[in-house]
Amino acid sequence: MAEKHVVILGAGFAGLGAVRVLGREKNLRVTLVDKNNYHLFLPLLYQVASAGLEAPQIAMPIRAFLRRYPNANFVMGQAERVDLQAKVVVVEGKPIPYDYLIVGSGSRSFDFGIPGVAQYAIGLKSLEEALHIRDRALSAAEEAVRTNDPQRRKALLTFVIVGGGPTGVELAGALGELKKHVVARDYPELRGAELRIVLIEAGKRLLNAFSEGSSRYVENSLKSLGVEVLKESRVAEVSEAGVRLESGEFIPSYLVIWSAGVAGAALPGLPTTRGNRVATTPELFVPEAPEVYVAGDMNYLEVNGKPLPQVAPTAMQQGTWAARNILRHLRGQKQLPFRYKDKGNLAVLGRAKAVAELGRVKFKGFLAWVTWLAVHIYYLAGFRNRLLVLSNWAYSYLTYDYAVRIIHHRHSFPQGEEFKKAPEPVLAETGVRKG
Amino acid sequence: MAEKHVVILGAGFAGLGAVRVLGREKNLRVTLVDKNNYHLFLPLLYQVASAGLEAPQIAMPIRAFLRRYPNANFVMGQAERVDLQAKVVVVEGKPIPYDYLIVGSGSRSFDFGIPGVAQYAIGLKSLEEALHIRDRALSAAEEAVRTNDPQRRKALLTFVIVGGGPTGVELAGALGELKKHVVARDYPELRGAELRIVLIEAGKRLLNAFSEGSSRYVENSLKSLGVEVLKESRVAEVSEAGVRLESGEFIPSYLVIWSAGVAGAALPGLPTTRGNRVATTPELFVPEAPEVYVAGDMNYLEVNGKPLPQVAPTAMQQGTWAARNILRHLRGQKQLPFRYKDKGNLAVLGRAKAVAELGRVKFKGFLAWVTWLAVHIYYLAGFRNRLLVLSNWAYSYLTYDYAVRIIHHRHSFPQGEEFKKAPEPVLAETGVRKG
Repeated sequence: MAEKHVVILGAGFAGLGAVRVLGREKNLRVTLVDKNNYHLFLPLLYQVASAGLEAPQIAMPIRAFLRRYPNANFVMGQAERVDLQAKVVVVEGKPIPYDYLIVGSGSRSFDFGIPGVAQYAIGLKSLEEALHIRDRALSAAEEAVRTNDPQRRKALLTFVIVGGGPTGVELAGALGELKKHVVARDYPELRGAELRIVLIEAGKRLLNAFSEGSSRYVENSLKSLGVEVLKESRVAEVSEAGVRLESGEFIPSYLVIWSAGVAGAALPGLPTTRGNRVATTPELFVPEAPEVYVAGDMNYLEVNGKPLPQVAPTAMQQGTWAARNILRHLRGQKQLPFRYKDKGNLAVLGRAKAVAELGRVKFKGFLAWVTWLAVHIYYLAGFRNRLLVLSNWAYSYLTYDYAVRIIHHRHSFPQGEEFKKAPEPVLAETGVRKG
Repeated sequence: MAEKHVVILGAGFAGLGAVRVLGREKNLRVTLVDKNNYHLFLPLLYQVASAGLEAPQIAMPIRAFLRRYPNANFVMGQAERVDLQAKVVVVEGKPIPYDYLIVGSGSRSFDFGIPGVAQYAIGLKSLEEALHIRDRALSAAEEAVRTNDPQRRKALLTFVIVGGGPTGVELAGALGELKKHVVARDYPELRGAELRIVLIEAGKRLLNAFSEGSSRYVENSLKSLGVEVLKESRVAEVSEAGVRLESGEFIPSYLVIWSAGVAGAALPGLPTTRGNRVATTPELFVPEAPEVYVAGDMNYLEVNGKPLPQVAPTAMQQGTWAARNILRHLRGQKQLPFRYKDKGNLAVLGRAKAVAELGRVKFKGFLAWVTWLAVHIYYLAGFRNRLLVLSNWAYSYLTYDYAVRIIHHRHSFPQGEEFKKAPEPVLAETGVRKG
């Protein structure tokens, strides 16, 4: 059998899962392509944004991972398009031919066409964005200490998170902890209560993948951390000056984090369906090109009439499943339809609070938090990272401290003139939050 | 006694030393000013550049440090000038009046007027520069894997360090370790020997503050790590394409690190002497303005006819000394002339190798390395950092691994055309290193 070349796009959970299956197979050559040189543990990215973890603790160098897989090579670069006919993927102008292709390029933030989101809000999908949020929040606090303009000070000390899914909720919880335990001690010039953390959700409740009981618990926990939760609130526009809701209410803010929507990051050349995702057969390949598999957030597959959730367990399972189907195909065996194992839902709300729903078993509080901790440490790729993340968490837990508060790139902020420029009706609403 | 206001410029070793003395004194108000919100442990900065340590492990948030000093405030901002007459320091346009001023703003890289250094070489005085070096080195290795042009590949895989003082030597040692232990395993596409690390020193030997025996040991140790050491070599020009020596030799390189010279970072309004430093009385104040003290790298003071070395122990000692003289002055006591305690010299060369010269006691090898480790951990400000740095070092030591190899900002490099543009005589020398 001639050597076959498998190209894997994306070193996320799906891509690494596929490498684990294929990287030691004889007669196979594997090329892993990613625009970054590290695998990012996305479920903990919000902790980098909120100064709880250091960036390298959730990022593993891909080449270190690949050491154990002698058949696998790494190419750092942006995949630009796929040519299904020629069986070639183009990476920064260079064509890479494949016999099999596994696309696991994940998802990106989606703004629903709302004006100003792309320009003024920050997503939370990459390490760069997480560090951007951290630098901006810390810079805003320093700037607030120095400013004399009360309106500007208010905007500097208001952090808005749009989207009440797991990312938004966990980030709001972490920022609430910062507010409660760190700001008062570190910024005697600010009264702790001055810092506003506002979580905006368009739907009727937070975490709609969870039960209603869990949603209520989460909302109450966030409120006890000082987070303002606005439900059934839709963002009409994000501007330099803040967030305008469809209700007309205006929230002055210089830090708006967007976790309200995601879309698949399908690249040109792939046939797409809803949300820029790629529909596959149950065996996870593209009907038009059976040697092309799609795994993870970008895959659109309905099981029992419902699309699979875009979460880490789906990606991990589909990455290995697609790889195993390639092996079956090579051996002339029948490919198997993907079977999703629902791992349940987990969300954490800061120190020792979490909700867990594992099948019919639902629990919350400290026990859920320990479960969350165990699951995340187990899945953290790389032994060293596990140890360091654990020691960082233990330190935070014991000292109520957040130690990673260094500003890499200081941000500058509007001088406050944008409030004066704003039309009267909006200005009248400024700072008059109801409820 | 009316409350007096002490302004401290710079949160380096001198500034923090002064805060420790003054931050709990009654009738004193202390304002610490720094352009960053963290104290940087400069002696370990080269380890961030060489991917051995994570940035926050050597950076302590200033506000966390100040918690223990209730009389001290922090202002984040760039000090722009001092008005000695008005007793005011201007920070980003805002005047801050002082009764006493301690200037501890340190030093910056100095290029001796050599063309191209400011534009193409990277200093190693800030966290930003260290991360810049790391990103550039790692990006260059990834790019080398992808390029087909042998001349460009050579330039991508040549890292040049100019300056054989402690910073240059320690960085060369750390990069040598990377070459020896990491590159071969992580980059099977490159032969390990392809990576060139060149250390250029203008003088007759490395580490001229050490004994000749130590210099020889250091040079041999570096060579055994695969570092090329060029002594009595002066840089004539740094360009996009590499380094040209005064001898005419040209070293193609896309990463040139400059640790050859420093100058004081004296700000406008201060009377300066040689090397942009400020001459003070033995009591550490400026003769023209006795309420202004200068401590650390920026202070120029001769003891027994020799200027004090610009090293961390000098800064620590002068910071506390200046602060104590302010207290003496306030109490109407006589100020004391600075007495320098020589702590000796230490330099490390990677794994378990170092040289130590403590007074008349000179030793090297493993014992010196343990001494170096103990001293640095002892001085690392902040208990948490000590623990994390130690665990990172222990990890590196046990596994021969360097784990912080993530690229934050990918660099792009010249396409190789600059070699073709170069005039003939220079081109002829390309890659023809003698010896």
